Amino acid sequence: MRRSPILIALSFVFVISSTLLHAQDARQSVKNIEDYRGIAGQLIEAATGDSTAFDRLGYFVDTFGPRFSGSQNLENAIEWVLGEMKADGLENVHGEPVMVPHWVRGKESLTLLEPRMSPLQMLGLGGSIATPAEGISAEVFVVQSFDDLVAHADQAVGKIVLYNVPFTSYGKTVRYRTQGAVHAAKAGAVASLVRSVGPVSLYTPHTGNSHYAEDTPKIPHAAITVEDAMMMQRMQDRGQKIVVRLKMEAKMLPDAPSRNVVAEIVGREWPDEVVVMGGHIDSWDVGQGAMDDGGGCIAAWEALLLMKKLGLRPRRTVRVVLWTNEENGTSGAKAYRDAHSENVKNHILGIESDSGVFKPTGFGFTGSDQAFTIVEAIGRLLDPIDAGDIQRGGGGADIGPLMRLGVPGMGLQVDESKYFWYHHTNADMLDKLDPKELNLSAATMAVMSYVVADMPQRLPRETTTTSN
Amino acid sequence: MRRSPILIALSFVFVISSTLLHAQDARQSVKNIEDYRGIAGQLIEAATGDSTAFDRLGYFVDTFGPRFSGSQNLENAIEWVLGEMKADGLENVHGEPVMVPHWVRGKESLTLLEPRMSPLQMLGLGGSIATPAEGISAEVFVVQSFDDLVAHADQAVGKIVLYNVPFTSYGKTVRYRTQGAVHAAKAGAVASLVRSVGPVSLYTPHTGNSHYAEDTPKIPHAAITVEDAMMMQRMQDRGQKIVVRLKMEAKMLPDAPSRNVVAEIVGREWPDEVVVMGGHIDSWDVGQGAMDDGGGCIAAWEALLLMKKLGLRPRRTVRVVLWTNEENGTSGAKAYRDAHSENVKNHILGIESDSGVFKPTGFGFTGSDQAFTIVEAIGRLLDPIDAGDIQRGGGGADIGPLMRLGVPGMGLQVDESKYFWYHHTNADMLDKLDPKELNLSAATMAVMSYVVADMPQRLPRETTTTSN
Repeated sequence: MRRSPILIALSFVFVISSTLLHAQDARQSVKNIEDYRGIAGQLIEAATGDSTAFDRLGYFVDTFGPRFSGSQNLENAIEWVLGEMKADGLENVHGEPVMVPHWVRGKESLTLLEPRMSPLQMLGLGGSIATPAEGISAEVFVVQSFDDLVAHADQAVGKIVLYNVPFTSYGKTVRYRTQGAVHAAKAGAVASLVRSVGPVSLYTPHTGNSHYAEDTPKIPHAAITVEDAMMMQRMQDRGQKIVVRLKMEAKMLPDAPSRNVVAEIVGREWPDEVVVMGGHIDSWDVGQGAMDDGGGCIAAWEALLLMKKLGLRPRRTVRVVLWTNEENGTSGAKAYRDAHSENVKNHILGIESDSGVFKPTGFGFTGSDQAFTIVEAIGRLLDPIDAGDIQRGGGGADIGPLMRLGVPGMGLQVDESKYFWYHHTNADMLDKLDPKELNLSAATMAVMSYVVADMPQRLPRETTTTSN
Repeated sequence: MRRSPILIALSFVFVISSTLLHAQDARQSVKNIEDYRGIAGQLIEAATGDSTAFDRLGYFVDTFGPRFSGSQNLENAIEWVLGEMKADGLENVHGEPVMVPHWVRGKESLTLLEPRMSPLQMLGLGGSIATPAEGISAEVFVVQSFDDLVAHADQAVGKIVLYNVPFTSYGKTVRYRTQGAVHAAKAGAVASLVRSVGPVSLYTPHTGNSHYAEDTPKIPHAAITVEDAMMMQRMQDRGQKIVVRLKMEAKMLPDAPSRNVVAEIVGREWPDEVVVMGGHIDSWDVGQGAMDDGGGCIAAWEALLLMKKLGLRPRRTVRVVLWTNEENGTSGAKAYRDAHSENVKNHILGIESDSGVFKPTGFGFTGSDQAFTIVEAIGRLLDPIDAGDIQRGGGGADIGPLMRLGVPGMGLQVDESKYFWYHHTNADMLDKLDPKELNLSAATMAVMSYVVADMPQRLPRETTTTSN
């Protein structure tokens, strides 16, 4: 369909006037936001006064341990949280049903057979198939990239491919974990190993999710330590033959029932308008999931509690959601989007904490320019704790489905310098976190969510969609 | 026996004149030492020119792996080193027989049963007895010191005592590993666990040696990770009952044959006078023993090779010894002392590298004041590589038996900031070391050993033993 020049001109007028209007609104909002400095100070003070949140996180992760999708640990943890939230006097506390993938690791082992016999530590990767019961004994072929593998694909046939890719950024190296089995199978390998995705290792394997493709055979896929990957690289470089035996009993069971955990303070003026905030309650099946993402859950929960303790009821609803199954499926995130599809339009903002609750620095924000101006102004309320830096871009896996439907999203940003030391390892335990930093994370989320939920104007969405 | 005043007076005269004489000699030696600046520079330059030593270390630790006393790995490693040393053209290359303790770890596991079921990582401690085949399932009682255990001994009866002692210094915390089973057994415990002796953990258990006493029952003794020790402390503090099942198959087999490795450059003037220098070729049964003490062995060996490459033959013999069984018995050190008892008097100096071959800073020295003045002067030759700082006190476990017979001793001092991150763990692998730092360590040992072996005057021993 051709569009008439008049309609095009009218569209322009609409966009310009709309932009001006929004800019004016944003300025007004920014002015109003300064009015929240007192309340922000109260929230910060209340957050940082004691170690209640940290003690709760400690009980949570110590008592229930790792909370992998499909496990009884996860459901026990959810049950306990629901009970505690009710006891806290939070509103509309309930679980929302979600079916989640149920992969189980089973027994697994890796043994170096040549040039010497030695047990090696490993962690099978989420979704991997098992080996035959007797294991797969094969020569190892070490590659340093997908290109390297393609260039030497003839040497991979019948072997176990090891991706020895040093950590640079998560984004650049995690693809060998997620896609490594597919590429190795295409080259004719019988199994694949990946150097753990982390910058520092004390012989610490990192697990995580992985994928298969429809058009390639499925082969077992596991992570080894940085140390052993480097060792095998050296062995290959000096011409030593490397033979290992990989045994994995991993299997995918039928989907299992789980729940997203929901609690609210209902808005006093526009209860249907929602600021949704949270983390994911599931974790990998190692460590305690303290950093990833027990701390994020407790921080969001505590943020809501702080409002309650101070008797604050914002104009809009603040809803805490602890999503299930972020790690290997994001079924919780999708189920939330579907269960609330009627009201996605009234989701004002999504806030996720899933980078660990280390010292917070601010938020990464994805949304309109006008909204950015407003959240930047809210950030200034967090300057007293140095947590008000708002960067462009950010969100989270659990609010991703909402964001793709136009909901503005933000992710809590923290000092991530050690995040990937512990990520998806047995070392992700409570001792890696700090009570003061957890409190600051809770304060940061409380101030942001409260002000966005309470300010007179709705946080504006993208205005690029015009009427034409 | 009473001593006559005349004899006492004569003794004084002897001591004073002897001291003056030594002081004069020391000044002369210091003057001579500056003459070695050219040779020291050549040794340093030769040491730092390539990565030969590091490549050799890599082959050694990758190919033979951990070299625990009694293991075939250790004997294979020794055989290879002897062959290489001969091929290097070193002199009097041979193994000297030593019988060593032969403890084997066997299968072992620790499982948390309450408050939830979870496998926990552990490493049995060297010398520990086994548990019954079905394991020991018992409540855990956490203490923070031996005093704490004694004060609450009634609570330890029938339980598994866990020493949760944070790392301060090795000396202060290692006693819970070495003596923990004895104290726990005295209190009536059925087994004991110790928080791993290390300052940083990525869920990394540390093994090491432990002892029993004649007068107390032997109970199984194992190390757990820092993370799990902290977790159990928290559980106990909040009143949660902790139950674990410990299974260990550990056993002590009959002593096994091993060897000290010896290689020399024979002295051109006084071949019977010996500067002995080395590290220990055995390691724990985890990781690769790259830092502890593969690197020390290679550095000493390389130091000797550097002299050979430069065509240097000192007046006295420089003997490299790679002692066996330092880790759990020091049988190699004692056997060396006994095999060379006739010639201990001609052992001019012992030098040991067993603190990792990180960036060297100098040496710790135990010996007479006169000797200290001389080795300080030699240290100045190492100023170009900032490795000439001589501290009072120092030596090593392998030269300990010689030092107790009066031989001056010194230990290579290095940047030890990360030593206890890796000590006795699976993380003690080649990647923790640096080729440049290994070369500097070799250079430092080469300069010190060469000059002491070549200088006209013998390094003076303690002069406190007088003729009376």
